[in-house]
Amino acid sequence: MSYRAPVSEMLFTLRHVSGLDGVDPDDAEAILNEAGRIAGDVLAPLNRVGDKHGTQFLDGTVTTPPGWREAYATFTSGGWNGLSADPDHGGQGLPKAIDAACTEMWSAANLSFGLCPLLTQGGIEALAAHGSEDLKARYLEKLVSGEWPATMNLTEPQAGSDLALLRSRAEAVGDGSYRITGSKIYITYGEHDLSENIVHLVLARLKDAPAGTRGISLFLVPKVLPDGSLNDLRCSGIEHKLGIHASPTCSMAFGDNGGATGWLIGDENKGLACMFTMMNAARLGVGVQGVGLAEAATQKALAYAAERRQGKAIGSAEATSPIIAHPDVQRMLLTMKAYTAVSRAICFLTAAALDAAHGPEGKAAHDRASLLTPVAKAFSTDIANEVASLGVQVHGGMGFVEETGAAQFMRDARILGIYEGTNGIQAIDLTARKLPLNGGATARAQIAWMRKAAEGLLKNAAPAFGHMAARLRGAIESLDRATSHQLAALASNRPETALAGAAPYLRLFGLALGGASLARAALASAAALKAGETDPAHAGRIALARFYAENLLPAAGGLEEAVLGGGAFTDDAALALAV
Amino acid sequence: MSYRAPVSEMLFTLRHVSGLDGVDPDDAEAILNEAGRIAGDVLAPLNRVGDKHGTQFLDGTVTTPPGWREAYATFTSGGWNGLSADPDHGGQGLPKAIDAACTEMWSAANLSFGLCPLLTQGGIEALAAHGSEDLKARYLEKLVSGEWPATMNLTEPQAGSDLALLRSRAEAVGDGSYRITGSKIYITYGEHDLSENIVHLVLARLKDAPAGTRGISLFLVPKVLPDGSLNDLRCSGIEHKLGIHASPTCSMAFGDNGGATGWLIGDENKGLACMFTMMNAARLGVGVQGVGLAEAATQKALAYAAERRQGKAIGSAEATSPIIAHPDVQRMLLTMKAYTAVSRAICFLTAAALDAAHGPEGKAAHDRASLLTPVAKAFSTDIANEVASLGVQVHGGMGFVEETGAAQFMRDARILGIYEGTNGIQAIDLTARKLPLNGGATARAQIAWMRKAAEGLLKNAAPAFGHMAARLRGAIESLDRATSHQLAALASNRPETALAGAAPYLRLFGLALGGASLARAALASAAALKAGETDPAHAGRIALARFYAENLLPAAGGLEEAVLGGGAFTDDAALALAV
Repeated sequence: MSYRAPVSEMLFTLRHVSGLDGVDPDDAEAILNEAGRIAGDVLAPLNRVGDKHGTQFLDGTVTTPPGWREAYATFTSGGWNGLSADPDHGGQGLPKAIDAACTEMWSAANLSFGLCPLLTQGGIEALAAHGSEDLKARYLEKLVSGEWPATMNLTEPQAGSDLALLRSRAEAVGDGSYRITGSKIYITYGEHDLSENIVHLVLARLKDAPAGTRGISLFLVPKVLPDGSLNDLRCSGIEHKLGIHASPTCSMAFGDNGGATGWLIGDENKGLACMFTMMNAARLGVGVQGVGLAEAATQKALAYAAERRQGKAIGSAEATSPIIAHPDVQRMLLTMKAYTAVSRAICFLTAAALDAAHGPEGKAAHDRASLLTPVAKAFSTDIANEVASLGVQVHGGMGFVEETGAAQFMRDARILGIYEGTNGIQAIDLTARKLPLNGGATARAQIAWMRKAAEGLLKNAAPAFGHMAARLRGAIESLDRATSHQLAALASNRPETALAGAAPYLRLFGLALGGASLARAALASAAALKAGETDPAHAGRIALARFYAENLLPAAGGLEEAVLGGGAFTDDAALALAV
Repeated sequence: MSYRAPVSEMLFTLRHVSGLDGVDPDDAEAILNEAGRIAGDVLAPLNRVGDKHGTQFLDGTVTTPPGWREAYATFTSGGWNGLSADPDHGGQGLPKAIDAACTEMWSAANLSFGLCPLLTQGGIEALAAHGSEDLKARYLEKLVSGEWPATMNLTEPQAGSDLALLRSRAEAVGDGSYRITGSKIYITYGEHDLSENIVHLVLARLKDAPAGTRGISLFLVPKVLPDGSLNDLRCSGIEHKLGIHASPTCSMAFGDNGGATGWLIGDENKGLACMFTMMNAARLGVGVQGVGLAEAATQKALAYAAERRQGKAIGSAEATSPIIAHPDVQRMLLTMKAYTAVSRAICFLTAAALDAAHGPEGKAAHDRASLLTPVAKAFSTDIANEVASLGVQVHGGMGFVEETGAAQFMRDARILGIYEGTNGIQAIDLTARKLPLNGGATARAQIAWMRKAAEGLLKNAAPAFGHMAARLRGAIESLDRATSHQLAALASNRPETALAGAAPYLRLFGLALGGASLARAALASAAALKAGETDPAHAGRIALARFYAENLLPAAGGLEEAVLGGGAFTDDAALALAV
């Protein structure tokens, strides 16, 4: 079975959970249907091909798998690359929420392929926000169309999570350009054969720049210079990786022959701020990749479970039952499905907040997006790993055999919690930088939004809701107490105890926010049923929300205890780890 | 860094948690030290080699990776293959608990390699328990020495978890032998070049046998017949798998030319009972594999975290700190270490119960081993997957690159929750077959054992214990209530609700049992400190137990809620899964 985009669930989530402005509802449906067609018909068939072939490196060139060039041409010629970009630069000007839904589809169908436009999108945002008019005029339309994809060149062997250790250098030439030298690693799509040119965004230090992160500048360094000559840069190798085999992970050498030519983006020594524009967009994008991967793994497991017959389910009249009839398998599938729905809701909420930041809500929405971005990134990608692993489990022995494809999802998913800032970094970002926003008011407002969903459940109590209201309320109160604890710990003389609880706190945040999101969906479905609608998806949504509330949300209490009472380990960690 | 066997932790766990009888303590230490040397010096260096080379299939033959034959010869000539086998058959007659410790080492050093002796061990047990004197005389010593390894031939394409669907056939020849025909899949080490002969244990149906699992018989079918001729069986292919690349997973064809010659083990149509002797030994063995893999992944992550410098830890005087100094990384490493210790304790407890079954405790110990076996298998292997994934995360981008080796642990670990009965099957076994043993008394006795540990903590309350006593007591009470619920649900008119809660129940059981085990270790260390011992490992053990109690044990409450209140999903699962 191939991937089928869950368009109706996406639309339902957009309408009833995250909200969707800035696009006509019928247009939105038409766009998602067409994107689903591209994902299912063009990208999905190449997913296994890409995994098996991988990319080939020879003498500085990188060859993508068979069919990749054609698919990229189809993708870009359809205008899918610049979906949310400004129409002034050739984009479609669609809301980020629609863009997120489409990114989910590309990622579900073919994670390796979808990475290329995702990075380009980050490049578009950084250039549009910080580039000079001249640079924008020269590069922005090409990036938006996808004719020239973009890359992010941050990591160096000694500088991964810690960019302060960055060593690549830049020197002003005097004509407005700079000479860039240095080595970068882990550069996704750093070299390939999909396009004539590649636009590298590179972090480097100017001569005499301050040490640390305040001495880093961002440069645009094209593979092919405006005069048509090749720049002084090359791909020196690609990595042999656990997953995303079809996405080339390149080592890049800049300036072997004196220096690659680049142009400054933004101000000197302010490169990190510019790069963060790119990274924040990419972080939400990676969260959405997690949603897509989880959706694809869930679809595959569901199809297998409906077909594979083993054992006789209790109460079944048949001699053997499809394994989907066994409660234990149902639990795995429902867990996969509920977590996927929850991650989707969180990512769409984040995208909708970015959209709302351009409307009357303004800064409050912008801050909400800032708060939610690390949750969207880390929670969704942790979920993707868990869901992909469950997908293998549902397949039994077949799941361990590569030709089935379930194992590829698991291998591919593993990078999502690592790149664009490890999930540990996201957790620290949430606790140390996002919770304190507006003195904690941004986080409190989000918790109030969750409470409203719980109150809605209480007001509309129905037998089909089961313990949903109580479980959701319990999780939200856990989150509330944990939030107070983290804010107090941060302000105490032992801020390391806040960092010690950062990871379970982020998980708790996502868990509760997800519960509130599914509650909103269930309430909307309950209202639709009351209004006489007969779509069985409504009852299904209520049952899924109930499963989540009764089986997965109860983890909230344990996470709260870990946040509130677990931080003591920082004192004796060295002793315990030496045993 | 290569693998170093944690001999002192193993001995401490054997002495203070599981108990160890039947061997002189000094002998035990000498044996474990020597096994650690073999694991570290002989097996570990071949682990990455095996992953890269895999096994090669050509015209029915399977070639193991370079160095495999020599390592197998070293292993068997040292007498390691028959560690716990009866000295009457050439074994060492050591306790299962010692055997488990050694199996952990082989698995940590090289999971693919260790599988071969593990399966042979199962074959030894089945043959020793059920074989005729004649068969035992012909095969047992060869199996014990490892000169001829054994395999388990259960799975057929349509019959995985459900052996009732098995179709392979057997026909009596009249001279005491049988002709076996049929196809088997997923046969580990079904064919290889490590030995001159391979002893296949094969499940098949006799003509006119009853349908279902009551018509299955077990046969011994050697690759080479007693007269030196090749039997009518062949390997028809090997699988391309996610992990354990060096362990050949074979498709086997029996009887292409009329029938392979085999001999009955046990009675006709009682094959499943015989096979379960083999499977139960193997299930504990697979749990122990999980412990070994988790230990190896933890060691690798610890070594990397101590070396890799990124960022400045709060309070550090250095410009950059090793990442092991960051609270978030400490949380990951402590989680890995605590879960590994907990899994080890559970597996050793199970092995010690098997040993005690041969002593004065007799049947009670046997039943305890039966109760604990599915927990040892499923909990430890779920943990192995989680720990291996955390190991990748600690490595950051390096973890996703295959040459690092962290990813191999994750790939290899993934089979452990699937083979020898999926972890879902284990959970059902625990709830449906093991909880009801002796009317629930076996489970209650185990819970009473846990309570004793919690009481010990209360009696010996020390500041270093933190919230350990309260958290452990909470987890045990959760388990107690969940146990009552499962037993009642089983006996109700809706037994499917017990199955619906089987997986979280098993996790809860392992979590609480692990907490009690670490508490016993912490109490022993506290007593040693009080007695004036100065080994820093004692304080480390207490800190690790405290971390586990305060950060991981709190998950017990949520698991209890899932067991008690989550089972309603079986009514609406189809609806929810169709959304």
